[in-house]
Parts: sequence; structure tokens; C-alpha cells
Amino acid sequence: MNWKKRLYDIVFKTDTRAGKLFDVVLVISIILSIIVVMLDSIATIHQEHGKILLTAEWFFTILFTIEYLFRIYISKKKFNYVLSFYGIIDLLAILPTYISLFFAGYHYLLVIRILRLLRIFRILKLYRFIGASSYLMESLKASRHKIAVFLSAVMAIVVIMGAAMYLIEGQESGFKSIPESIYWAIITLTTVGYGDITPVTPLGKALASVVMILGYSIIAVPTGIITAELTRKKDKDERDRKICNECGCNDHDKDASYCKVCGKEI
Amino acid sequence: MNWKKRLYDIVFKTDTRAGKLFDVVLVISIILSIIVVMLDSIATIHQEHGKILLTAEWFFTILFTIEYLFRIYISKKKFNYVLSFYGIIDLLAILPTYISLFFAGYHYLLVIRILRLLRIFRILKLYRFIGASSYLMESLKASRHKIAVFLSAVMAIVVIMGAAMYLIEGQESGFKSIPESIYWAIITLTTVGYGDITPVTPLGKALASVVMILGYSIIAVPTGIITAELTRKKDKDERDRKICNECGCNDHDKDASYCKVCGKEI
Amino acid sequence: MNWKKRLYDIVFKTDTRAGKLFDVVLVISIILSIIVVMLDSIATIHQEHGKILLTAEWFFTILFTIEYLFRIYISKKKFNYVLSFYGIIDLLAILPTYISLFFAGYHYLLVIRILRLLRIFRILKLYRFIGASSYLMESLKASRHKIAVFLSAVMAIVVIMGAAMYLIEGQESGFKSIPESIYWAIITLTTVGYGDITPVTPLGKALASVVMILGYSIIAVPTGIITAELTRKKDKDERDRKICNECGCNDHDKDASYCKVCGKEI
Amino acid sequence: MNWKKRLYDIVFKTDTRAGKLFDVVLVISIILSIIVVMLDSIATIHQEHGKILLTAEWFFTILFTIEYLFRIYISKKKFNYVLSFYGIIDLLAILPTYISLFFAGYHYLLVIRILRLLRIFRILKLYRFIGASSYLMESLKASRHKIAVFLSAVMAIVVIMGAAMYLIEGQESGFKSIPESIYWAIITLTTVGYGDITPVTPLGKALASVVMILGYSIIAVPTGIITAELTRKKDKDERDRKICNECGCNDHDKDASYCKVCGKEI
Repeated sequence: MNWKKRLYDIVFKTDTRAGKLFDVVLVISIILSIIVVMLDSIATIHQEHGKILLTAEWFFTILFTIEYLFRIYISKKKFNYVLSFYGIIDLLAILPTYISLFFAGYHYLLVIRILRLLRIFRILKLYRFIGASSYLMESLKASRHKIAVFLSAVMAIVVIMGAAMYLIEGQESGFKSIPESIYWAIITLTTVGYGDITPVTPLGKALASVVMILGYSIIAVPTGIITAELTRKKDKDERDRKICNECGCNDHDKDASYCKVCGKEI
Repeated sequence: MNWKKRLYDIVFKTDTRAGKLFDVVLVISIILSIIVVMLDSIATIHQEHGKILLTAEWFFTILFTIEYLFRIYISKKKFNYVLSFYGIIDLLAILPTYISLFFAGYHYLLVIRILRLLRIFRILKLYRFIGASSYLMESLKASRHKIAVFLSAVMAIVVIMGAAMYLIEGQESGFKSIPESIYWAIITLTTVGYGDITPVTPLGKALASVVMILGYSIIAVPTGIITAELTRKKDKDERDRKICNECGCNDHDKDASYCKVCGKEI
Repeated sequence: MNWKKRLYDIVFKTDTRAGKLFDVVLVISIILSIIVVMLDSIATIHQEHGKILLTAEWFFTILFTIEYLFRIYISKKKFNYVLSFYGIIDLLAILPTYISLFFAGYHYLLVIRILRLLRIFRILKLYRFIGASSYLMESLKASRHKIAVFLSAVMAIVVIMGAAMYLIEGQESGFKSIPESIYWAIITLTTVGYGDITPVTPLGKALASVVMILGYSIIAVPTGIITAELTRKKDKDERDRKICNECGCNDHDKDASYCKVCGKEI
Repeated sequence: MNWKKRLYDIVFKTDTRAGKLFDVVLVISIILSIIVVMLDSIATIHQEHGKILLTAEWFFTILFTIEYLFRIYISKKKFNYVLSFYGIIDLLAILPTYISLFFAGYHYLLVIRILRLLRIFRILKLYRFIGASSYLMESLKASRHKIAVFLSAVMAIVVIMGAAMYLIEGQESGFKSIPESIYWAIITLTTVGYGDITPVTPLGKALASVVMILGYSIIAVPTGIITAELTRKKDKDERDRKICNECGCNDHDKDASYCKVCGKEI
């Protein structure tokens, strides 16, 4: 079935003129549909233009549903697509509207469509971006054990500090329960500092100061981990060294034509 | 006493099936007991289910007390265990309930039990995590002098800036005393920014801007220290070194032809 | 026309005594004119000294207009100057006053004159500063793809988290619409934490905690990217390389005995 | 005058038993005097114990004045001491009390005495700390041009963003003047986020989001600068390489006894 193959190329690839056009139209539709959902969430706009926005939302949802079913239809290995990252995103991007028929309000989850925009990188053939993102992902993956240890330490600090503040501050000043105090400890340690819960007793303020300085200092740890990993990876990538078959010296630059030790051609 | 040895292996180690099971049950008990304490601190839940939670708390405390005594009993070197890091944590994890008999409220300190969860790393045989955490600890240890100098500088800045703001702002706008002003300086320098104390005079705002930009810039210092340490350690670990078959010295450069210690060819 | 060339040197260069003097007077005028605009924006000062400030503003604007026209007049390649970075800044620095004749208030945009101060670096002959800034710009440029990927990820997180919070918190507690919730997510993720919008439901606080810890952790990513780039650049700059006298290639390792390009002994 | 030399050693050095004792007593006096100033600033304590604290303050001030005069007296090069860093600090640490005779309240500046505590590092013979701090100072010094460029950029951003917000938000919502708006821009860019001034218009919130993300991202720049500098310095320090007199190879480890290239003893 040649036409099925051609449709597949148009829908899934961007090599052809038609394939590129298809993806551009798709991206514009996605952006428009997200704007529709956002506008609908603003009370005054919802009251005035609610019906138009609802229509637009259903229009995009039906469009994306057809597209989703079409993608399944033209895929050879249907399950591969359905269970792939993009397949799941494509499904999640249409479900909320149908769910909103039964549970009002859930259609706001449609913003998950923003993940469909990841296709943008493919359309623009921005291989550099894909390279950059896989580079970052690898570095994060390589540091995952250290980051897990760091997050465990953060967790232990906020639980203990939260409970201590609950005891010190009493229930008057916003530290109403241990979970609430832990919430405060997270706000403080991460240096967000909303200020909706703040200590009022001198001892509480002293302990809060400790948490702040701790948070201010230990942010150095994840930064150090990621940076060390990125630096190392960079070093590794750049160390593409040639080997001389004559003397065996394996420390030549990539652009070397002659061995720097024995002078033989490489 | 063979059974004592076997019990020791079950309680302290995780190699055997029974040992693993024991640790899993323990970890679940710890998590449940922390949840009980947290729930009890929420006023509405305390009022309704206070009695059940109190019973649960005493149940877990007695359980952990028996476990603690049992651990002492089966240890050969009893003092070694009692004075070890885990031994002290195990004791601190049961004391608050008993203290709460005399001083109401102190049972909330039971959240210190979260430190007992450090055993999780052992159960899961996550040596990688232990490796990662010891790696981080070493780096922090190696930079402790620099971090101490940094914290001294931070301390001097917040004291002087706090006193200056107390003078500038007067007592009207939250800067009620020098300690209070120092508390504000810490909030500002660490970029937490609760907003419970803020300057109102133009000069105060100018000085606050200086503190903010200072805090925003000098966070680079601890980050730089930790990162440089982590990068250096990484470099050292990864620099694959040659071994001399003659004297066994394993710290030669990759391009070394002769052992730097005994002079023999490698 | 010799006098035109000499005037060009005075206005555009700083080698001559007159050229230096011209630039110093210019910088002082720019600073004074910015102070005038700032003072004028303070209501009490505007009421009392409004007329004097308006006169001063027009004085500086006319001065800079004359200077701008003069710069065009004495330039040989007039379009080159008009379309250059400095040429555009020079134009933008006078336009707001004229616009304010038709649209009141727009003269505050005169603060854009601060960009004219970039000339300061030239006056002070601070080549080191120019070197430092071009060094930083290059590093930022080299990391632009990674930073774009990072910002895309941040964008996706704040949109999805914003919509989720809008659903969870309902409209009572400040999360009035999805755009408003996205604004909150940005405030929280970047650890700014104004506290003008804060979650009130337990589930909302839990999700907010996730956003905070996420923001606290992922700040490591841009830091890591920039640091790795700066470190790499530094390494490259400092790695003193050997030069081959035969072919002139200047990129040999320190321990190279033969040119890697032509094979001659170095 | 032998006794003058001996007194000099006691007061200025810490080698002798008496010299050490002198410094310890001094440090304790300094800490006590700072605590007195801090306590005096708390209104309730001032009312009750004001007289005792005033007496204590004068006691310490007179003590330090005698010490200061004594230090001048026993110094051979009197001006060297008076104009040295410590000499100036010692003077500043006694002046505020005398000034407070004429201008009430200025005695709070006595907290500058905290700088006298820098002597602690000398007393404890903590050469490591001195090494660590000089190490940090050198790195900061080496990056001062880049940091100056960075701060200039920050300054330009906050001035332009501040003026733009003043125009957008109007005077109702806290953005009362351009300097006030610049203050807001600094609060936001540095991620402090007090929340005392926050945008209320949609456009203002959008621009604020841009400032936040900018602030969140560019913090990477000073961090990267300092880290690259610290890493480089570390590399340099560790690269203490030996040279072989036989073959001239200059890339041997510090602990190498034999040349790794020709095998000769170094």
C-alpha cells in the first residue's frame, strides 16, 4: 500500500514538503487550542465568550482525535506508536475534553497539549537542540544517585526543622501542624520565602535563620554535582584522541596527521 | 551461642532472607509512626482521633524500645552499638514519648525517627547511594575551611548591615532591635525575602538593594567552592593510572614509559 | 576636509585630549539627564520642581539631538553609523521626549539613555572590561542551544503546574485564571516568592512544595551549563601550545616532538 | 627598651603564653561588648537595664581606648599601625560611643567591633583559614573585571525594567516613582521577592515574569565566573610538576623519583 507509506511520511516525518506543512499546521493548532483553554479560564472572558471558546475547544479536540486515530491507522506497528512517548502525550492531549463531559472543570488539563509542542524541535530540524537536550538528560541521569542523596537530606532537614518549629512557635503564628510547618521549612530552605507563614518568637527566628543559611549554602551541592558532570562530559567529548600504529602513543589531537612522538604518519 | 549470632545477623545485617524481612518491617513501622505523629499535630484530627493516635504512638514506642534493648542484648560489644551513630539515633527515636509524660508536647520530636530511615539505603543494598553520599561528604569535608571563612564573612555582613538598618530605619518599620534587624539581613542576604520586615525609608531601600545584590552575587562563592572540589575529585578518580609490575606503584601517568618510583620500564 | 576628520576623531574616538574631554562631558550629561528623569517621576518633587525638570529634560534632549545629527554629519559612511548598535541607542535616547509631546508619560523611557553609558568602557580605555564582556558573551553564545532547551523545559513546567494549581486551588485563593496561576508558578519556580498568591488547600501546598524543590534543584542546570562553558574556554585559552617553525601550525601539545601536520621535528 | 619589645610581642603576637592569653581576653571582651550593644537596642531590655548596659558600654569603650593608645605607644612605626587595616578597625570600634555623646543613637555602630574578631583566626593559629580566605580573595580579585561587567549589566537591566514597570503599572500599585520601581526590579531580579511591591496589571505581571526568569538564569553567570576561577587556581596549585635534567621532560608528578620518559633519576 504505497499511499499508506506516503501518508505515514507526511504525518510522522518532516523530510517532504507536505510533511513539513502538516507539522507546521499541527503546531499552530496546538498553540491556538492552548490559548483557547487559557482564555476560557479567565472569568470575565468566560462569561462573555464562553460559547465560542467551548466550540473552539471541541473543534480542536475532535481535530486532534481524528489525527490520533489516523496516526494509529497508518502506523504499521500500531502498539509501538500507542505506547511510545508521543503516542501517550497525543492521547492525554484529547482526553480532558471528554472527561469534562462528566466532571466539570477538568478540560483545563488540556494545557498538557504543550508537551505536543516538543515536535517543534523536529520540525525546525533543530538537531542541535535535540543534541543539547540529550546532553543535559545524560548528565542528569549520570548524577541521579547523588541528586537522590541530596533530596533525601533536604527531606530529612525539612521534616525535623518543621517539627522543631511547630514545638517552638506554638499554634498561634501559622505553624498550625507539623505538615504545615514542613511546608514552611520547604518555603524557607528553597529560599522562596512567601511570607505567608513566618516565625514570631525570638527562638523561632533564630532557628529560621539557621534554615535560611543552610538553604543558601546547600544549593551549592546540586549545582556542584551537575556542573562537575557537565564539565566531565565536555572533557570526554573533546578528548577524541587518535592512536599511532607505529609507536602506540594514543594521545594525538583529532586533526593530527603525524604522530607527535615518533613522527610517523597516522 | 549460635542463636545469638544468628539473631545478630537478622537484626543488624541484610544478607539473609530473615534479615531483609526484619528491616523492611522496621522501615514500614518507622514510616507509619512518623505519619501518626504528623496526623496527631493537626488540631481537627487530634480532636477526633486523638486517643487512637496516642495508642498507636505508644504501640510504636514500646515496639522500638523492645527492639532497642534487644539490639543491645545481642550485640557483643554493647557499648560500641550504644555509642554508634545508629545507636544514638535509635535511642533518640524513643525518648520523646517518655519525656512527653512529664512535658506535654515534646512527643512531636518523634519525627527524629526519620533519621532511622537512613537504614533504607542499607536494605536496598544501594551501594551506589552510599558511594554517592560518602563522595559528597568528602567534598564538603575538604572544603570545610573555605566554607567556614565564607560563613564568617556572611555573619559579619549581616551583623553590620543589620545594625546600620536599625539606625537608618528607626523603630517604626519592623526594625525593632539590632537582633531583629540582623534577622532581616539574613532573610534578605539569603534571598529568602519573607517580606514581614521591609525598609520604608529611601536610604533603607538603597542599603537593602546593596544587601540583595551582595546576596545574589556571593552565593557564587560556596557554589564555586563545592564545584571546584567535586570537579577535582572526579578528575582524580577518573584519571586512569598505570601500574608498575616491579614495585606495584599504581600512580603513573598514562604516557609514562618508566616507573617513577623504581625506574624500571613499565 | 581635514577639519571633518579631526572632528570625527574627537566625537567618535578617545585617543586625543579633546576626544577624551568630549566623552567625559557626554557621560556626565547622560548621567545628569537620567537623574532628571528619575527625580521627575517622584510625585512630590514633580509638583514642586516640575517646571525646572521639564526644562532640564528638554535641554538635554536638544543637546543630544544636536549631537546625534552632528555624528551623522561627520560620519563618512552615514548609514553605517545610523544602523550601528550605538547609532540606534543614540536615536532611542532622544525619541521619548518628542513622543511625550503627543503621549504624556512616555518621556520616562528616557532611562534607555543608560545604554549610552556603555561608552564609559571606551573612555576609560578599559580593554580588560571589553575583553571580559566579550568573553562572557561568547560563553553565553556557545551555550545558547542548551539554555533554549532549559527555558523550554521551564516554560512547560510552569504552564502545566499553573493549570494543575488552578484546578486544585479553585478560584478563591488568588489562582483566578490559568495565566494568573502560571504567573504564580513562575514566581515559585524561580524562588522569588512574592507571597501575593499562595496556595491554601493541603493538596495545593503539596504541589507548591514540589514546584519549589524543583525550582531549587534545576537552577543547577543553567549554572552548570555556563560554568562548564567558561571552564572549557579558560582551559583552551591557557593551554600553551607549541608552534611548528616549518608549517606555522600553532596547536601542538606541550609534549609533542614532531609537528602533527607536516611531521617535521619541532 | 627591652620591656617595650616584650609588651609588643604580647599585644601584637600570639607566640608567647602571655600573648595568647591577652588575645583570648580581648576576643571575649569584644564579644561581650557586642552583646551589650545588641541587648541595649531591644526596647524592653533598654527600659529595665538601660543604666547597667550604658555603664558596660562605657567600660568596654574606655578599655578599648586604653588598648588602642597602648598599641600606638608600643609600636615602633606608629603610623604603620594607625593606617593599617587593623589600626583603622580598632579606631572605628571605639569612636561610636564618643560620637553618641553628641548624636544620640550612633553608639549602635559599635557592632563594627565584630570586624575586630578577625583576630580570632590569628589566635587559633588557624593558618588553614587564612590560606582559605586568601585563596578566595585571590579568585575574587582575578574575576573582578568580569564581575564588574556582570554588575553593570544587572544595573542596566534594573533601571530599564524599573522605568518600564513604572510606565505600565501606573502609580496605584506601589510603583510610585522610577527609583521605587528600580528597587522593585532589584528585589525581583535577585529572587528576594519581599512582595511589598507587586504588579497588578496583566502586562506588568508578564514583564515581571520576564525579570524573574532573567534573574533566575543570569545568577549562573557570577557562579560560573567564580567557579571557573577556583577550578583553574586549583588545577594550577596541583600542577607542581618536576623537570628531568636528562631529557628535559617537564611533566613529572611531585612524588616522582625517576623520569617517566628516559628512566634517569631526577
